[in-house]
Amino acid sequence: MSTPSPQAIAPGLSRRLAAFVRNSQWRDVPEPVREHALRALYNGFGTALGGSSDQAILRLAASLAPFSAGEAATVIGHDTRRDAPTAAFLNAASMNVFDFDDTHQGTIIHPTAPVAPVVLALAEAQPVSGTALLHAFVLGVEVTCRIGNAISPGHYNRGWHITSTCGIFGATAAAAKLLDLSQEEILWAFGNASAQASGLVETLGFMAKSVGVGTAARGGLLAALMAQGGVEGPPMPLEGPRGFLKVLCDAPQPELIERGLGSDWENLRNMFKPYPCGVVLNPVIDACLKLRRKPDFSADLVSDITVRGCPLLKARADRPDVTTGREAQVSAQHAVAVALLRGTSGAADFSDAAVSDPDVKALRAKVRPIETDEAIPVEAAYVSVHCSDGSRFEMSEQAATGSPARPMTDAALSEKFAALAHYGCPAINAGALAERLWALRDASDVGSIMALARPGA
Amino acid sequence: MSTPSPQAIAPGLSRRLAAFVRNSQWRDVPEPVREHALRALYNGFGTALGGSSDQAILRLAASLAPFSAGEAATVIGHDTRRDAPTAAFLNAASMNVFDFDDTHQGTIIHPTAPVAPVVLALAEAQPVSGTALLHAFVLGVEVTCRIGNAISPGHYNRGWHITSTCGIFGATAAAAKLLDLSQEEILWAFGNASAQASGLVETLGFMAKSVGVGTAARGGLLAALMAQGGVEGPPMPLEGPRGFLKVLCDAPQPELIERGLGSDWENLRNMFKPYPCGVVLNPVIDACLKLRRKPDFSADLVSDITVRGCPLLKARADRPDVTTGREAQVSAQHAVAVALLRGTSGAADFSDAAVSDPDVKALRAKVRPIETDEAIPVEAAYVSVHCSDGSRFEMSEQAATGSPARPMTDAALSEKFAALAHYGCPAINAGALAERLWALRDASDVGSIMALARPGA
Repeated sequence: MSTPSPQAIAPGLSRRLAAFVRNSQWRDVPEPVREHALRALYNGFGTALGGSSDQAILRLAASLAPFSAGEAATVIGHDTRRDAPTAAFLNAASMNVFDFDDTHQGTIIHPTAPVAPVVLALAEAQPVSGTALLHAFVLGVEVTCRIGNAISPGHYNRGWHITSTCGIFGATAAAAKLLDLSQEEILWAFGNASAQASGLVETLGFMAKSVGVGTAARGGLLAALMAQGGVEGPPMPLEGPRGFLKVLCDAPQPELIERGLGSDWENLRNMFKPYPCGVVLNPVIDACLKLRRKPDFSADLVSDITVRGCPLLKARADRPDVTTGREAQVSAQHAVAVALLRGTSGAADFSDAAVSDPDVKALRAKVRPIETDEAIPVEAAYVSVHCSDGSRFEMSEQAATGSPARPMTDAALSEKFAALAHYGCPAINAGALAERLWALRDASDVGSIMALARPGA
Repeated sequence: MSTPSPQAIAPGLSRRLAAFVRNSQWRDVPEPVREHALRALYNGFGTALGGSSDQAILRLAASLAPFSAGEAATVIGHDTRRDAPTAAFLNAASMNVFDFDDTHQGTIIHPTAPVAPVVLALAEAQPVSGTALLHAFVLGVEVTCRIGNAISPGHYNRGWHITSTCGIFGATAAAAKLLDLSQEEILWAFGNASAQASGLVETLGFMAKSVGVGTAARGGLLAALMAQGGVEGPPMPLEGPRGFLKVLCDAPQPELIERGLGSDWENLRNMFKPYPCGVVLNPVIDACLKLRRKPDFSADLVSDITVRGCPLLKARADRPDVTTGREAQVSAQHAVAVALLRGTSGAADFSDAAVSDPDVKALRAKVRPIETDEAIPVEAAYVSVHCSDGSRFEMSEQAATGSPARPMTDAALSEKFAALAHYGCPAINAGALAERLWALRDASDVGSIMALARPGA
């Protein structure tokens, strides 16, 4: 039963956000935003290649295969194409399955995963230029992160998987832009998205997480297509008294959605991860990799290891006993062990096989419970190693790779892409694909690039 | 990032609920529950026929058509079949589009809409007997309503469309039972459902509501199929610290999910609606229909109308100005006008056409703002009519049709079914279909009945 109330917050917010998406022109998007969005798309494509052969993705792909009509869209890293909604689902899940995709500062949203797969799928249904695709992608990321800002930090803290819950609105906005929907249709599309917004933190660490992320991409695409087909939504899906913001957050700040909209771009606060694990581990891994490069260090001699960092590091990642690669992604003990033992911190180092490697297990057991200091920022960490010969090594990291103070370079992103392609999908020509993606802004038909992401094509 | 916490409420609840679904035998379901479930299924089938040609359903069907693989499952009232998830989506939306489907006492969940379409779709993929189908349906309704009990009334009051949010778990349970999933797989399926649970009250009164209800059915079916395909979920999707109950409710009572489970059946608290509008209007309409049957009453002479009822009646349905059939469903003024003018209160009386009928408009304008009395229960109402010739009519209803004290009879359900079929889908043989549905428990292959719900078959 409908129960409207006059106490709406900021009436018209949803409508104005729809107008922003409708009216935005490519010339309105500053050059640094365009460049950064291309990096995000490139990075996300790489993490999708890396995740494409993960068991979660293979099982989801098999489960959805009987319900895909035709082969219009590429599933990154797979031979067989699927229909656009199914491909969007699977590519979003692949991009995010290792949590190795981008992270929006402040909200910890992974904005590319729900948004990029939608524009890529639509680009195989109709010719779409590289700039048109990037423009829609920029708007989708912007909508996702701004809605996230309005409900952070309460929303995630309550237990919402913010990548999925906010991502569906970005996926909707991006699809709506490429489909050239009217302002009213975009508003309806937001309403259709609001009816599907979901995702729980409780599922993280399990394959069910990918169900939420995939549903955000697929649901966003369908929300826009339904609006195009005349499926009408409410006028205030975000700010209404029983709309998204109030229902999914105890103390929303709706005004943050519009503050600086179109001038201060959230796209630029989107960071890329050097390691496939929780961002709190980045400085710890940086310090361990530097320490291992010391000429007189030998992992064989290590007797015990102390890690000191911010309180969040302990809260999220003090996990000595791990049994799966998923769990290892949030285990400081595991991250320290592989970095010191192998000198690497890639997808293979957070696999089930790495977790059960006897040498890794032995070293993991030597990492003491995490020590914390409130004065240490989240980008910093200290590692101290005692050895059986009495020697001692100390190393610290003050600004972790991937942090705002030290973002990943394009060269580092290229290395990450190549490593992920090799890990998840060695059968494709990753070099050729990477080249076409870096040149995306010159492409007249993005769809033609997608064949390079299929091993059999 | 995963952030497990030791403070889980009732650990093992989700697992035990999965065990209940897994271990339940048809012989464990008491005869009154079986009979009542058959009524619910029959009633829901009728409301789906009535809703099948509504604009919302036609537009959703057209939007989803390109993404349906094959024609395995019947869309009730439509010529063309769709794949099982798409048919489940559309049939759930049809059943609920007029809010004319069943209502679970206490939670106001419409439990049949998300659940029945899933078992009906599966029954066309493999031979399913009438009793196997009813058994899965009973379990789906039970799971839906019990999860609803645990989060009522706070969940709905916060703005959650409880039919959608809880319905997906019932859809999952019903599908899991028919697919013969193991206990562990059912637990995973609940996790996959938890990642998709959604639906906002803000969308009620708009087509976007049906997006939420359809998604619940489709998502529940897929949650079970994914679990069958090995997509693993968390161990405590319901009761975990960031699980469904705590995240979607401020003060959940998880113990209500298990209290009386298997002995005190929520299925029996599922009521059927005589009129296609908010249940608070039932006693008002009853009183008006009785009043109109008085030999000396003439609607032409009415000068003003007073309605007195419970506070909820005013809160939900004091709506003198309506412009659409959807709004009219929660307008006491409209319901009174059509009942007094036409002597009917069916789907056609809550259509856009009825809303703009000049005679209805004129009479609607004569209904004063609703008067309330806290002593009046929700099942009762008083109507008082003054006429221009000085005459006055009074009528009250103490136990509305469809209330627990006066449930709809099987004969009344049959009349409702026939009227809805005639309204929404006159081309089918509704009599033959009704007969087969009443005899469902003797059916060896329910799928064969579905052809009768397609005009072209």
